[in-house]
Amino acid sequence: MARLATVSASGAPHLVPVVFALDGDTVYFAVDAKPKRTPHLQRLRNIAANPAVSLLADHYEEDWTRLWWVRVDGTAREVEDPSRADRALDLLAGRYPQYRQSRPQGPVVAITVQSITGWEAADNPGR
Amino acid sequence: MARLATVSASGAPHLVPVVFALDGDTVYFAVDAKPKRTPHLQRLRNIAANPAVSLLADHYEEDWTRLWWVRVDGTAREVEDPSRADRALDLLAGRYPQYRQSRPQGPVVAITVQSITGWEAADNPGR
Repeated sequence: MARLATVSASGAPHLVPVVFALDGDTVYFAVDAKPKRTPHLQRLRNIAANPAVSLLADHYEEDWTRLWWVRVDGTAREVEDPSRADRALDLLAGRYPQYRQSRPQGPVVAITVQSITGWEAADNPGR
Repeated sequence: MARLATVSASGAPHLVPVVFALDGDTVYFAVDAKPKRTPHLQRLRNIAANPAVSLLADHYEEDWTRLWWVRVDGTAREVEDPSRADRALDLLAGRYPQYRQSRPQGPVVAITVQSITGWEAADNPGR
């Protein structure tokens, strides 16, 4: 899983954990079926106003020489094409049994990857 | 640990893992001593341009009924006062043995908490 950062129209960052699937240089995530306080999620409002997003996967443990992270920066857009959304949901269901039991009902978002940045502590003995 | 989202002057989000310490309604983190490719870190440039930040701590496991996350939204500022920075470093060193062995040499940042948002799957059986 990873954490998704989006930016609101007023320039405030917003962070939420997401599960995701990769397809070439596109990362997909879906809004799942759990009840939401609002049908218009902040992350979707933000993406509509500002498509720039950042996605971070990291590894933490007590031994800091074993830390690593990978960050993907890109632009996000809701997937309008139903067959493309369906393919993305198949990829997600392939990775997450929870999505096989209960297929996400909400919109699918596609992130076009613009850069990938990685870091690992083992390469940085100064840490 | 947590993930910190900041926003660049041009409105792009930036994400990085951070370790942190709490003091009342302030969250502190420090730039530690490991070699950096640039002395002017993106997170610090972003905070100088736009103080709005978001910090997310979460818990992930295979059983999605046990997920939770806590998000802190606030405004960040580099700590200029050396004695305040020193107190913050003491708090960080109290939490992280790595910081006792090697005290961070970089700037300390204070985040003034404006809101705290929490979510847990157990409260959302629909998930």
